[in-house]
Amino acid sequence: MPMIRECIVTTLNGEGRTHIAPLGLIQEGDGWIIAPFRPSATLDNLRITPFAVANFTDDVLVFAGCLTGNKDWPLRSATHVPGTVLEGALAHAELEVASVEEDDQRPRFHCRVVYEASHAPFKGFNRAQAAVIEAAILASRLHMLPREKIEQELAYLQIAVEKTAGPREHEAWRLLVEKIEDHYKHAPPTQPEGPEGP
Amino acid sequence: MPMIRECIVTTLNGEGRTHIAPLGLIQEGDGWIIAPFRPSATLDNLRITPFAVANFTDDVLVFAGCLTGNKDWPLRSATHVPGTVLEGALAHAELEVASVEEDDQRPRFHCRVVYEASHAPFKGFNRAQAAVIEAAILASRLHMLPREKIEQELAYLQIAVEKTAGPREHEAWRLLVEKIEDHYKHAPPTQPEGPEGP
Repeated sequence: MPMIRECIVTTLNGEGRTHIAPLGLIQEGDGWIIAPFRPSATLDNLRITPFAVANFTDDVLVFAGCLTGNKDWPLRSATHVPGTVLEGALAHAELEVASVEEDDQRPRFHCRVVYEASHAPFKGFNRAQAAVIEAAILASRLHMLPREKIEQELAYLQIAVEKTAGPREHEAWRLLVEKIEDHYKHAPPTQPEGPEGP
Repeated sequence: MPMIRECIVTTLNGEGRTHIAPLGLIQEGDGWIIAPFRPSATLDNLRITPFAVANFTDDVLVFAGCLTGNKDWPLRSATHVPGTVLEGALAHAELEVASVEEDDQRPRFHCRVVYEASHAPFKGFNRAQAAVIEAAILASRLHMLPREKIEQELAYLQIAVEKTAGPREHEAWRLLVEKIEDHYKHAPPTQPEGPEGP
């Protein structure tokens, strides 16, 4: 099984405007595979501008922000491909699409690394950051997963947040939990289970 | 709440031999707090040689190895304090103990950063790495946690390993699961719960 890395991918649309999206990139030798769902802005953009930047950030607030409507993060121009780099990323890779494998659900864009740069040191694993990444995945799949599973997993993940988060992780967690709660406010309540139920 | 970062801490004993231990360091301004449990080799070493190196690695095999009896990882000398640096760490910080706060369970060594260096770029979050870190914590608390909780959490964490791990993450996961299974081979079986139980 190939390794998957969660990062922030930026692509350009036909007018040169940046689209920013949290995505899991698939490692393939020295390159990366981007496999965006159909339909998505990342997919459209890669057809028009076959370049992307993989931004390796440990700022989970960017992940949570992108999933809760805040896509306005500071960017600067990439240096070797048409594209933009997320300010504050610990490292980034500038990518060029080398080939496309079509698929009904998730076309696979095989990319080669044109340039990469490191900007700030990794500071070690943080369990709260990992919990926010898991919550971000749950928040992006609310229509596909049962409510009970989501609530159980959030309760489990929250422990690591309470024990190890800094202010940005707390804020990211709050944004995602709020989004999930909002979703269920508009959904029918779950029937209680078991013989005592109505 | 302060942020906690999981890293590999190296300290020296009275003979200058390195002790290597996975530890959660507490961020405190620009410095770090090391809070080793009583008794532990890290605690003894910090009393004798008040320096340490925080090795920020994303190689979860080192975490799993240290918890399963393999503490033999390549090291080189630190440059600004008496100590050793883990080869392959993405970054490291060389620390000097500035003050000690005594505690019956976990004395707190407040450390200042004497020197830090970055060696390789961060490549983004990997869910399997985070799952291995959680499993490592479980594996180090087998005597404190109920078996059912541990088995439930492992089952949950395994999903991310299956979906996103590379070879080192798979190997680290295998080592930890083996350690946990070995532990229960020598423990009495858990009584089945519920009305159908014996």
